[in-house]
Amino acid sequence: MSRNKIIGPAVPGMPWQEPPAEYTNGIPVWRYSGNPIIGRNPVEGVARIFNSAVMPYGDGFIGVFRGEQINGVPYIYLGHSRDGIRWEFEKEKICFVNEAGEEFMPVYAYDPRLVKIENTYYIIWCQDCYGAGIGMAKTTDFKTFTRMENPFLPFNRNAVLFPRKINGKYMMLSRPSDSGHTPFGDIYLSESPDMVYWGRHRHVMGKSSEWWESVKIGGGAAPIETTEGWLLFYHGVTGTCNGLVYSIGGAILDIDCPSVVKYRCENFLLTPEEWYEERGFVPNVTFPCATIHDSETGRIAVYYGAADSYVGLAFTTVEEVTDYIKEHSVVREPDTETGLR
Amino acid sequence: MSRNKIIGPAVPGMPWQEPPAEYTNGIPVWRYSGNPIIGRNPVEGVARIFNSAVMPYGDGFIGVFRGEQINGVPYIYLGHSRDGIRWEFEKEKICFVNEAGEEFMPVYAYDPRLVKIENTYYIIWCQDCYGAGIGMAKTTDFKTFTRMENPFLPFNRNAVLFPRKINGKYMMLSRPSDSGHTPFGDIYLSESPDMVYWGRHRHVMGKSSEWWESVKIGGGAAPIETTEGWLLFYHGVTGTCNGLVYSIGGAILDIDCPSVVKYRCENFLLTPEEWYEERGFVPNVTFPCATIHDSETGRIAVYYGAADSYVGLAFTTVEEVTDYIKEHSVVREPDTETGLR
Amino acid sequence: MSRNKIIGPAVPGMPWQEPPAEYTNGIPVWRYSGNPIIGRNPVEGVARIFNSAVMPYGDGFIGVFRGEQINGVPYIYLGHSRDGIRWEFEKEKICFVNEAGEEFMPVYAYDPRLVKIENTYYIIWCQDCYGAGIGMAKTTDFKTFTRMENPFLPFNRNAVLFPRKINGKYMMLSRPSDSGHTPFGDIYLSESPDMVYWGRHRHVMGKSSEWWESVKIGGGAAPIETTEGWLLFYHGVTGTCNGLVYSIGGAILDIDCPSVVKYRCENFLLTPEEWYEERGFVPNVTFPCATIHDSETGRIAVYYGAADSYVGLAFTTVEEVTDYIKEHSVVREPDTETGLR
Amino acid sequence: MSRNKIIGPAVPGMPWQEPPAEYTNGIPVWRYSGNPIIGRNPVEGVARIFNSAVMPYGDGFIGVFRGEQINGVPYIYLGHSRDGIRWEFEKEKICFVNEAGEEFMPVYAYDPRLVKIENTYYIIWCQDCYGAGIGMAKTTDFKTFTRMENPFLPFNRNAVLFPRKINGKYMMLSRPSDSGHTPFGDIYLSESPDMVYWGRHRHVMGKSSEWWESVKIGGGAAPIETTEGWLLFYHGVTGTCNGLVYSIGGAILDIDCPSVVKYRCENFLLTPEEWYEERGFVPNVTFPCATIHDSETGRIAVYYGAADSYVGLAFTTVEEVTDYIKEHSVVREPDTETGLR
Amino acid sequence: MSRNKIIGPAVPGMPWQEPPAEYTNGIPVWRYSGNPIIGRNPVEGVARIFNSAVMPYGDGFIGVFRGEQINGVPYIYLGHSRDGIRWEFEKEKICFVNEAGEEFMPVYAYDPRLVKIENTYYIIWCQDCYGAGIGMAKTTDFKTFTRMENPFLPFNRNAVLFPRKINGKYMMLSRPSDSGHTPFGDIYLSESPDMVYWGRHRHVMGKSSEWWESVKIGGGAAPIETTEGWLLFYHGVTGTCNGLVYSIGGAILDIDCPSVVKYRCENFLLTPEEWYEERGFVPNVTFPCATIHDSETGRIAVYYGAADSYVGLAFTTVEEVTDYIKEHSVVREPDTETGLR
Amino acid sequence: MSRNKIIGPAVPGMPWQEPPAEYTNGIPVWRYSGNPIIGRNPVEGVARIFNSAVMPYGDGFIGVFRGEQINGVPYIYLGHSRDGIRWEFEKEKICFVNEAGEEFMPVYAYDPRLVKIENTYYIIWCQDCYGAGIGMAKTTDFKTFTRMENPFLPFNRNAVLFPRKINGKYMMLSRPSDSGHTPFGDIYLSESPDMVYWGRHRHVMGKSSEWWESVKIGGGAAPIETTEGWLLFYHGVTGTCNGLVYSIGGAILDIDCPSVVKYRCENFLLTPEEWYEERGFVPNVTFPCATIHDSETGRIAVYYGAADSYVGLAFTTVEEVTDYIKEHSVVREPDTETGLR
Repeated sequence: MSRNKIIGPAVPGMPWQEPPAEYTNGIPVWRYSGNPIIGRNPVEGVARIFNSAVMPYGDGFIGVFRGEQINGVPYIYLGHSRDGIRWEFEKEKICFVNEAGEEFMPVYAYDPRLVKIENTYYIIWCQDCYGAGIGMAKTTDFKTFTRMENPFLPFNRNAVLFPRKINGKYMMLSRPSDSGHTPFGDIYLSESPDMVYWGRHRHVMGKSSEWWESVKIGGGAAPIETTEGWLLFYHGVTGTCNGLVYSIGGAILDIDCPSVVKYRCENFLLTPEEWYEERGFVPNVTFPCATIHDSETGRIAVYYGAADSYVGLAFTTVEEVTDYIKEHSVVREPDTETGLR
Repeated sequence: MSRNKIIGPAVPGMPWQEPPAEYTNGIPVWRYSGNPIIGRNPVEGVARIFNSAVMPYGDGFIGVFRGEQINGVPYIYLGHSRDGIRWEFEKEKICFVNEAGEEFMPVYAYDPRLVKIENTYYIIWCQDCYGAGIGMAKTTDFKTFTRMENPFLPFNRNAVLFPRKINGKYMMLSRPSDSGHTPFGDIYLSESPDMVYWGRHRHVMGKSSEWWESVKIGGGAAPIETTEGWLLFYHGVTGTCNGLVYSIGGAILDIDCPSVVKYRCENFLLTPEEWYEERGFVPNVTFPCATIHDSETGRIAVYYGAADSYVGLAFTTVEEVTDYIKEHSVVREPDTETGLR
Repeated sequence: MSRNKIIGPAVPGMPWQEPPAEYTNGIPVWRYSGNPIIGRNPVEGVARIFNSAVMPYGDGFIGVFRGEQINGVPYIYLGHSRDGIRWEFEKEKICFVNEAGEEFMPVYAYDPRLVKIENTYYIIWCQDCYGAGIGMAKTTDFKTFTRMENPFLPFNRNAVLFPRKINGKYMMLSRPSDSGHTPFGDIYLSESPDMVYWGRHRHVMGKSSEWWESVKIGGGAAPIETTEGWLLFYHGVTGTCNGLVYSIGGAILDIDCPSVVKYRCENFLLTPEEWYEERGFVPNVTFPCATIHDSETGRIAVYYGAADSYVGLAFTTVEEVTDYIKEHSVVREPDTETGLR
Repeated sequence: MSRNKIIGPAVPGMPWQEPPAEYTNGIPVWRYSGNPIIGRNPVEGVARIFNSAVMPYGDGFIGVFRGEQINGVPYIYLGHSRDGIRWEFEKEKICFVNEAGEEFMPVYAYDPRLVKIENTYYIIWCQDCYGAGIGMAKTTDFKTFTRMENPFLPFNRNAVLFPRKINGKYMMLSRPSDSGHTPFGDIYLSESPDMVYWGRHRHVMGKSSEWWESVKIGGGAAPIETTEGWLLFYHGVTGTCNGLVYSIGGAILDIDCPSVVKYRCENFLLTPEEWYEERGFVPNVTFPCATIHDSETGRIAVYYGAADSYVGLAFTTVEEVTDYIKEHSVVREPDTETGLR
Repeated sequence: MSRNKIIGPAVPGMPWQEPPAEYTNGIPVWRYSGNPIIGRNPVEGVARIFNSAVMPYGDGFIGVFRGEQINGVPYIYLGHSRDGIRWEFEKEKICFVNEAGEEFMPVYAYDPRLVKIENTYYIIWCQDCYGAGIGMAKTTDFKTFTRMENPFLPFNRNAVLFPRKINGKYMMLSRPSDSGHTPFGDIYLSESPDMVYWGRHRHVMGKSSEWWESVKIGGGAAPIETTEGWLLFYHGVTGTCNGLVYSIGGAILDIDCPSVVKYRCENFLLTPEEWYEERGFVPNVTFPCATIHDSETGRIAVYYGAADSYVGLAFTTVEEVTDYIKEHSVVREPDTETGLR
Repeated sequence: MSRNKIIGPAVPGMPWQEPPAEYTNGIPVWRYSGNPIIGRNPVEGVARIFNSAVMPYGDGFIGVFRGEQINGVPYIYLGHSRDGIRWEFEKEKICFVNEAGEEFMPVYAYDPRLVKIENTYYIIWCQDCYGAGIGMAKTTDFKTFTRMENPFLPFNRNAVLFPRKINGKYMMLSRPSDSGHTPFGDIYLSESPDMVYWGRHRHVMGKSSEWWESVKIGGGAAPIETTEGWLLFYHGVTGTCNGLVYSIGGAILDIDCPSVVKYRCENFLLTPEEWYEERGFVPNVTFPCATIHDSETGRIAVYYGAADSYVGLAFTTVEEVTDYIKEHSVVREPDTETGLR
């Protein structure tokens, strides 16, 4: 068995549930029995919370959540939890300000990710940049959220920061898109000396010939640093005559040159099978946006949006999921290249 | 609180269920606990009844129902009920005749509305006019149904008569469409001196920047006359990568010039959340076609098609829903204009 | 040979050119050798004049012309000619007013038709009605143009009035459309007692199994009254992998019940073959909008837009074109029906 | 009542469940109460088994099953059952070999059918032929499966062999398709003297004006020989704004000239209504691929894929279903023609 | 220089024009200076002749021509020529009969090819088989044309017979298509022992990464037997924002196993550049359908449809074109494989 | 008249032709009478040169040209000219190298722009970045061309550098796109401290309600510095039923904050009207990529691609074109905003 270890702090109080006697289909990822952990209409004025990003904070957990308002427009809401499972949400959406401290709200905001680098928390989300693009803000206290420059031109979605600098540079994954539902999509890597200017864009990986991810893919949770490389939970999409199906996949990127894919699991790790994943505003979606992981035990909790209506929780361990990814790894040339053309 | 009153007869035996202790999301519209009130295969040869229009009649209720035959072709069926909840359907579809009393059936007929004006009952529906258009018939006894001239050229759907003449003219809302699933759609108003010739067409309102109604809208139940104006329950449609989602919205039109929107609620009043709304022939549809309302109590029962498979029932009161619409009203220029270009 | 006669005034000075020695393909319609009669940039601020309607007026001719402004937006311009071939245009677009005499301009206006009924001239065109619809105005002096009610709900194009009342009613052909380039289209007939309210809509004819009109059709010039019926020049459209091709067709409608097609020519009468028809803003378009015809001689001059860039002129005689239409007539059930469903 | 009889062997141990007291909608086809008989993740590495073909074999039943691997790619798996309801699957997908006995695997393989002709079992499926086409193999022992020539050029799906030669020729139904989700589709018949070369292609039947099969149709289970003709369970597809709906239909083909349709039921025999038919990888699918039928009793068990996620089972009898098809038969000219143009 | 030789009869009177002093772009294919050799309206009732197939016959040449009738429907017409350049056409379309000698006409017929095998002339074309498919007929005297079985299921176009049996079997190239304008397309090979049953289908070659043939390809002229293999002129299609562009390409197939591509020219041999290729019913089309070639001199005359409106003629020699193809040959795996999956 | 002056060097030998007696449509831009200045097959192996960028260099002019190879794949070629009108091209495409001097060629390269900043020449073009993106290289001698980092993530096209730093930063316009023909498109501005990292992206301007630019726009020639601001020639695109039409527009951006549009001409400055603009590989395209301009006289020569087949040349003067743009300027809110959301 892999001796792969999470590099990072211990999170002793992280949510956890023991695995079932036998893994479904041999895949070492299992759903929380109390799913969905967040149901419909969780806070007044919000019809659905789904794609959401959480972190340890203080003696509990904190998170930024996509809240679909009852006018249909999504914004980001702040939530707190003692156990990572039961969440309480603030009634008002997060108020972003500019450098001058003046309110500076996006037209809409969705699919946030939350990453901590050197004592600052960064929120990255999708918003209108005269077209769907990436917004970013920072906070140190979860009270003041200061908007930063939008890192990329539109059209882009699913941006995720790495939790530390690599070779002295900030690193971000993103998924260039189009102005609609985007029937294509690869993951790219960009770097920045200062979080203002971005460049040295590299292609990381694209859709594959495996049918579960044959339409497009996109970054999910922030990469987890491990001794084997960056462990990435991402989403892969396939198409049917009745719409798209979003599953969760796994890959391990090179620790120093993360545009190189070391291992990429040919099988999905989780695919819509439960009623809360198959039925809702967008049926057949499991969409990972965050993990909580404990370096002590190697435990990983994956938070995923379900059917654009609910939040689901699944568990694995770094050793088991690494083993599984490596055993079922298929990498192709566009994966293993540096990604510059 | 609003003192808005329904103008019209009392309907003492109308279906009713007290509201829950707390409104979901603060919206004063609640589902009947016995939903769906009409299930699959309600009468032989009919697979599904959903979009349906009902009225008080005699000492009970009567209705015209979209019955999806087991060959897939929809026709209109007559139903009777004592309490507005349990319905019995006639086995044969409604037989329409022409002025000469000869049978004159449409090729297909769906989404009927039922309106009473001065002792005559009018049924308006969607049918083939060498293309999808509007059919109309009248009856005084629910035994003989005489077809009238089709009021508009195709392509049109979702036509709804006002329950009385305004300024001496019959008034009808409709939703010009195209020959397919129609990725656009605004509500227009037309008037007629005689129910044969129609003109003075005016734009009432279109899709909005609220995401729940960002693709198209269409008239639902016949407008309810109130002291504040015409209360309109309509449907608003949004698009996802896995199809359209139909919610119920509310607006109040000027009493004398109903192409002018006085108030328009930025939030949906009801959106698919229950299994019978999310799962069926067309998932994620709540589609209002009729109300029963009592001027005495201000109670309103909204009948809506669910997932193109079931009939659902929801309740509100004229005061509460008016308050809610006004508090959350956003009107834009194309709403408040007279609608002539 | 047919003895079909035009019913109407003599137009002794109408444009004319003798036919060629032999008809191309046996079709008795021939192009004017000086085509195109109106070239690019005919008047300052107007890039192209093409779909246009002309009439005898005074001791010459008058016309309303689609002028494509250099910002791309079309409006209607007035033009005068002594011979129907050389045209002079007014520099300003036609100024429409409402009943109160106040300026009341459409957002855009294109494809006008011009019809005289009982000493009033009516212009009918396509304009924005919160969606593409039909605009209408009247004039008696070509100085004041008073807008009338828009006759139909959108989406509609290619409306054409009949030049006299039939059975005491005004009659109009139109072609219900959609919000885009409309991949379908049949011709309908509507009647009105007063030019305000319209009804008794009837289907006239649709696309056919002949490939040259297999996508859609639309009314062209105002129908010409003849002893055999209403002679209609219309456009028929076919599709190729590189776009649509618009040809000119001919049909004869019943004189008293013009929703019934008596004869319909299975062959096109003219199809894009010349450089000014094949090359331009929209390649491969011949689009008839008006005729000038002389009851004395039976001569007919057809004005047609060419490639959305030029005006072309073609000639025929009522006897010859009637013969040709009748000899090659194929009518099918939807043509010969009354057109009510 | 019909005296129609199945021609073929008795299958005394076939799965069976008595009909309900009253037929749903009068249709003599009823679901097995234990549906779905095959659930999710039925064997390691396989996420879903659905479209599947079974037969009596030995003292039980055998079947070939579409197994959707957890990389999303479908292959064919072998299964065994004592009662036709509880199935055990082999862990490895079927290994196909060429004539030389060397492994010769398709790139993917799905929607298998299984037919026995003169002591040889033939499997026919959809596979990549540089485009989706038909693969075929034979076996006599269900241990060695020898690939045969692909019978047709792509693009083709839903091929089904007849269970005996007709007029000395092998006969196959198929459904020419396109390279995607194919918004059209008719059933054709082809014949072969030797299972290598195929010709004398004839059109059997196409989509109809009944809405439940208005988009496309395709062969389902292998035709059942009866005294009235070949009884065919097929699938018919309709379209909604939220995707396609697959129902099961029935027809009876001429016994000697099976491109001629004798009876064709205007109503579906079964349409998605249960949760396992409406919710899954492809919602709203019931897709018949096989029957087990007993000539002694006339009992028929229909195996159908449900929502591309499950296997369902339904029952009927040859007499009842024949009666129903004949009573509700509507055949049109393209059905009753020989099918040669 | 290549010593490649044509295997076949000498055709001393074949059309010919000496090459220009310098080849355009170094490509040894040059247009006839008198192009187009067939203009608009070549025979009464026919608007355009373009995709056409010709052969030596008697002391001149004979050909079958796609004649686009003035109702838009294409049929096949017979033409005669003394010099292969000036053609006279029969006024009536070819009358096809069945085996019994009774008239048996297709609904439409287009893009014919003409091939002589052992003293019989075969015409292969595209026609309606309840969907676009391949029709075939034979004649020995060009007076009686007897229809044969349609070789393939629809949807298929661009079928071309080889001019002799290979390994004792008739061989045909074809291009499986879809029901519309077909945004894909590869060339396949099929064989038949008897021209009735066809099988052993093999993939020959598909679109390539060269942009001029990046959308689809299709067989053109019947393959020319040479000492190096079968010389094939085919069409390759690219897409622009304003439609498709059809160019002429060249390849050499293995003489005994023609599903194997020996050489394939990465460059087009001719692409639309002249007004008659760029302007017409379908702009930007050069579409080869036949060659006349002389084994004595190695001269080849390529007949191609131009803009679906004209017939063009171009020349080359077997040595020069072989050299060019070989020098610029790029073959990829799907080209050089046998083509069986 | 405007006193607007070009800021920059004099170019005394620049190409020039006096204006016509009267401007077409009053627009002070006129075509060179010798157009097209570059015809088909300009150099061996290159079928068409069109979108091209030129500059003064030495005692003549130099340029980088999109050369469409005869395999259809575009690359960039170098050309020289004494007069800016007659051009000679190098036979080999430009060889790009990486920082290490090793050959580093893009998969394809098209639509180059050429800009000189502080004695270095920069070429910016569209190329494959695992999707269409922007490539960039620099040279000082037009012998060695060193590739730089690709400035943006795909999908992007039409990038143009400003000819000097603004506020100490390099500035680039670009047009985010999608993976196909892109039915949308706005111009954005990005800045860089070092030509490696880019950020502070701002929206400049989008499509407008003028019909000639109602689909999308994109940057054309490098902005010209003038006393009034940056003069930008760009392309605007409209859609017809037969494809897109590309015209040339003009705007003036703020000199210090060029994401703010000061003036934007509501009319096109040039639109396809000549045969070489309307007929070719992509009909109806005029696409500006470069200017040569002389600060002494204010003369401007605009080089534009025509029909993706030719190079055209047009003239204006800075005073006249500035006057025209200002007189017909219409700016809307998204134009005049800073462009940050």
